[in-house]
Amino acid sequence: MQATLEAIIAQNRALTAQGRVATYIPELAMSDADAIGICLIDGEGKTYLAGDTDIRFTLQSVSKVFALMLALEDQGFDGVFDRIGMEPTGDAFNSIVKLETFSSLRPLNPMINAGAIATTALIKGNSVAERFERLYSYIKAIAGNERIRFNERVYKSEKATGDRNRAIGYFLRDVGAIDGDVEEVLDLYFRQCSIETDVVGLATLARRLALGPDAEPQLSPEVLRIARTFMYTCGMYNATGEFAVKVGIPAKSGVSGAIMATAPRQQMGIGVIAPALDEKGNSIAGVQVLADLSRRLHLSIF
Amino acid sequence: MQATLEAIIAQNRALTAQGRVATYIPELAMSDADAIGICLIDGEGKTYLAGDTDIRFTLQSVSKVFALMLALEDQGFDGVFDRIGMEPTGDAFNSIVKLETFSSLRPLNPMINAGAIATTALIKGNSVAERFERLYSYIKAIAGNERIRFNERVYKSEKATGDRNRAIGYFLRDVGAIDGDVEEVLDLYFRQCSIETDVVGLATLARRLALGPDAEPQLSPEVLRIARTFMYTCGMYNATGEFAVKVGIPAKSGVSGAIMATAPRQQMGIGVIAPALDEKGNSIAGVQVLADLSRRLHLSIF
Amino acid sequence: MQATLEAIIAQNRALTAQGRVATYIPELAMSDADAIGICLIDGEGKTYLAGDTDIRFTLQSVSKVFALMLALEDQGFDGVFDRIGMEPTGDAFNSIVKLETFSSLRPLNPMINAGAIATTALIKGNSVAERFERLYSYIKAIAGNERIRFNERVYKSEKATGDRNRAIGYFLRDVGAIDGDVEEVLDLYFRQCSIETDVVGLATLARRLALGPDAEPQLSPEVLRIARTFMYTCGMYNATGEFAVKVGIPAKSGVSGAIMATAPRQQMGIGVIAPALDEKGNSIAGVQVLADLSRRLHLSIF
Amino acid sequence: MQATLEAIIAQNRALTAQGRVATYIPELAMSDADAIGICLIDGEGKTYLAGDTDIRFTLQSVSKVFALMLALEDQGFDGVFDRIGMEPTGDAFNSIVKLETFSSLRPLNPMINAGAIATTALIKGNSVAERFERLYSYIKAIAGNERIRFNERVYKSEKATGDRNRAIGYFLRDVGAIDGDVEEVLDLYFRQCSIETDVVGLATLARRLALGPDAEPQLSPEVLRIARTFMYTCGMYNATGEFAVKVGIPAKSGVSGAIMATAPRQQMGIGVIAPALDEKGNSIAGVQVLADLSRRLHLSIF
Repeated sequence: MQATLEAIIAQNRALTAQGRVATYIPELAMSDADAIGICLIDGEGKTYLAGDTDIRFTLQSVSKVFALMLALEDQGFDGVFDRIGMEPTGDAFNSIVKLETFSSLRPLNPMINAGAIATTALIKGNSVAERFERLYSYIKAIAGNERIRFNERVYKSEKATGDRNRAIGYFLRDVGAIDGDVEEVLDLYFRQCSIETDVVGLATLARRLALGPDAEPQLSPEVLRIARTFMYTCGMYNATGEFAVKVGIPAKSGVSGAIMATAPRQQMGIGVIAPALDEKGNSIAGVQVLADLSRRLHLSIF
Repeated sequence: MQATLEAIIAQNRALTAQGRVATYIPELAMSDADAIGICLIDGEGKTYLAGDTDIRFTLQSVSKVFALMLALEDQGFDGVFDRIGMEPTGDAFNSIVKLETFSSLRPLNPMINAGAIATTALIKGNSVAERFERLYSYIKAIAGNERIRFNERVYKSEKATGDRNRAIGYFLRDVGAIDGDVEEVLDLYFRQCSIETDVVGLATLARRLALGPDAEPQLSPEVLRIARTFMYTCGMYNATGEFAVKVGIPAKSGVSGAIMATAPRQQMGIGVIAPALDEKGNSIAGVQVLADLSRRLHLSIF
Repeated sequence: MQATLEAIIAQNRALTAQGRVATYIPELAMSDADAIGICLIDGEGKTYLAGDTDIRFTLQSVSKVFALMLALEDQGFDGVFDRIGMEPTGDAFNSIVKLETFSSLRPLNPMINAGAIATTALIKGNSVAERFERLYSYIKAIAGNERIRFNERVYKSEKATGDRNRAIGYFLRDVGAIDGDVEEVLDLYFRQCSIETDVVGLATLARRLALGPDAEPQLSPEVLRIARTFMYTCGMYNATGEFAVKVGIPAKSGVSGAIMATAPRQQMGIGVIAPALDEKGNSIAGVQVLADLSRRLHLSIF
Repeated sequence: MQATLEAIIAQNRALTAQGRVATYIPELAMSDADAIGICLIDGEGKTYLAGDTDIRFTLQSVSKVFALMLALEDQGFDGVFDRIGMEPTGDAFNSIVKLETFSSLRPLNPMINAGAIATTALIKGNSVAERFERLYSYIKAIAGNERIRFNERVYKSEKATGDRNRAIGYFLRDVGAIDGDVEEVLDLYFRQCSIETDVVGLATLARRLALGPDAEPQLSPEVLRIARTFMYTCGMYNATGEFAVKVGIPAKSGVSGAIMATAPRQQMGIGVIAPALDEKGNSIAGVQVLADLSRRLHLSIF
């Protein structure tokens, strides 16, 4: 396994040169465009590392999975899905079009920005600080305290430049998809995006999602099933369909270049980081690493 | 003329029952849904009044015409139209779709909300207060000081509830169509919408637009021509084309139920108020009053 | 006047190099990309010619104006506008999007392809041949028999390659905007596009539209007014708003590079041909010729 | 198992009253709106029947799965996916919007009509008859000859009324997504939609998709994997995401009210028929039957 991982990283390192790091958040623009690293935790819990594994990075959209899980714990199935749809979309992750042209006025799904902001708005708490603390603790409980930090600089950078998300936030309130203070909801959303980890933390999160409900920490089977399903149907922005065909396992990407991939059949968790992105916002080398790995290890769920 | 106006008002008063006052700005929801009034100033400057002419109302989108005129004075033709398009659109006044799906990333024209907010952003001044004072004075210089006031309650109501406009504002900055502080630009925009007048003030504004550049106050012929053109091609939201066919003169409506119509060939200015709106946001009775008047007086430019 | 026209043609001839002839209809791709010619008939009926005035070209979308006029004669105002809208659109001339996303399911206006095909479908007659003969005679009666021909090769070329129009035609029948045989309606539409003239014929058509209802041939004042209005609000594809600002008179362009422009105040008709098009489908040099001419002769209606 | 199926059918029969049979194909409008039937073939190959199992119905969109499989056999992975995308879409099955607004000009995926027509166009053969015969034989080889027929009346009805599909077909050729004769491609598409079976045939097809590549008839592992993947990500029109959450297995619906569902983990195939549809075009009772069955038998892949 170690040799396989090293070979795949070596093969795909050159791909990073074809991508570009995200620039719309100034702090992300400072990421190392050439870096590539992976952590895989197998069915027995054994951890393998290859490539640049000492990098730390923010979760960005990877956090949407855990915000959804906590919102489901807080509000129940109907409490979430009365307000947020379940449908994949061929539109870009930051698209606002469907909000206007669709009669339902619900964001399409919890993995695009519009739906993720509406999801985050459903996390309970008396203040932004309390709501964030609950989500932060939830993630730390799964990944292990020592792997999870908060990146204040990225948070401030997101908050200072998040005009598109602000547009989405106010639009959501205008159509009744969120209540309350928009800036507070966005503050919470920017915070969750700024939670920081490394590939080991990412693989630990991924592996927990690959295990059954009774592993530690215990998770509702329903919440676990829904999380995996949305990762599979909506996890890779508007390249999700292609990822399902070429890789075939639930995964969620973030514009930091992180991908969290989970293989339930093999009880395997994988964390990849490679900050150079393709035009759809996914790690260009990270996607290929997972495609190669899936082929070699027969990971595809189908 | 007096008899004609009274007859037309009488004929169309019942139409007000088929419309509804705007409700998305709470203060506007308190307008008198049954009211209908008109002021016409003819080629010789003679003023005629009919119906409920003592009502005061805010300019709302009618203000977009004067913001465009002042922005043109401040920035010149290219300074405005490098950032804002000139094309009519079949979309609703508060639509955001075209901003995303059009490659140009410029709002389509200065009469829809997106373009109007970008236009307002171009008015010069060192502060919101100074910029507003300049626009306010500009409008007072045309309409006469005594006819123009500022409605603080409507302003606060707009500011408190303007989520869709906030969404548009942040979207505009995200795509680079406006610079600077979005809340300041919106504040200025909400203020201009809250300028208050009556039908005499509205007809005075309209008549000035019907006269040549040398009337008082003097206006650039270019600015005058552009204002009339956009009123004709984009002035009545997504019912502009129908208005051009059925009425045939430059006009601008606002969701307060105001319509400012200008007949350059006859050097005539018309102000109508009837707060009950049709589904596209135009005064339902006001449009019909102007259609009847145009037919009787042969106002159409074609 | 003669010197003015020659100077303007000379000034703008170089612009033709920046455009490209339409290629989607093979026959049009054979047009002379460098050619530019104009005919102007003034208020007294005097004819001026400059540039390449011996070229013959097909009407293409210019024919939409006359199809609308005949449909209005045949079906009356409501007969046409119950099925076709009156609103300008910022979308491209061959766009199908609004047909699907707008609840009304009516094509937006009679000057875009969708609306024009629905308009043509309203021309009366017992067969395609008879319906075409009626439209052909209508146009000949206005332009003079000797100026109008039918270009069989262009017609066959359009018919062989008109997939986008076929898509629009079947979509229109699917949503109930047209009845009857789609291929017959398209055949009639391809025929009307293939009517051929020269700049004198085009200027003669334009001048008739500039005159009152009692000129020969007599035209309904209503029909005349509606034709001018749609030329002004929808005549230049999705550059109509810019044309209104920069030129300011009713005009209709075709992808052959023809523009028919009419100045009602001056009772003047203008025909321009310059086959090299800009990206929106308008003659790139033709638009600039008309802008220069409008500025020199103060043609703008506002 | 038999008791479970009967209970679920009994529970959901009343739901049929809340749906409506498809009416846009006249022959389908004659379906029995109250009918509901199921066939399940379990991991050992044992067949269970409940409800109205003697109904015959056409495959409609269920056929898209097999057309994709044969196109992959004929053209290989790149031969298909160079022309057709892999992305789910939130748009309706007969939507044309994305074809115009997406820069790629490829239909989004092989399960919406646009992509399915482009897929069918890739099936090899010297004539429509030969191409259809190949697809028909391919389906018969999987389902068993005696279960598959061809419904001439439905075929003629589709062909006579398929205006939306014709619009899509001509649009596809206009943008270069298909070559050759549009009417021939549509003829082939209408024929594949008109292949008829019963729930036993449908369940037999479904079960073969649940088995490995070496079952009879042998299928390429790649083709099998891709078929299951698209059923999961795009199989239930714009309710696919909700179906993934609530049912969680690959499935494909048709507007005849058929649903073919396949449970690879359990090696189980399910065919359901209930012609009354919900507003998205899926069998209203059929979806609920599968949701109940999935919950009882723990079918979900996640």
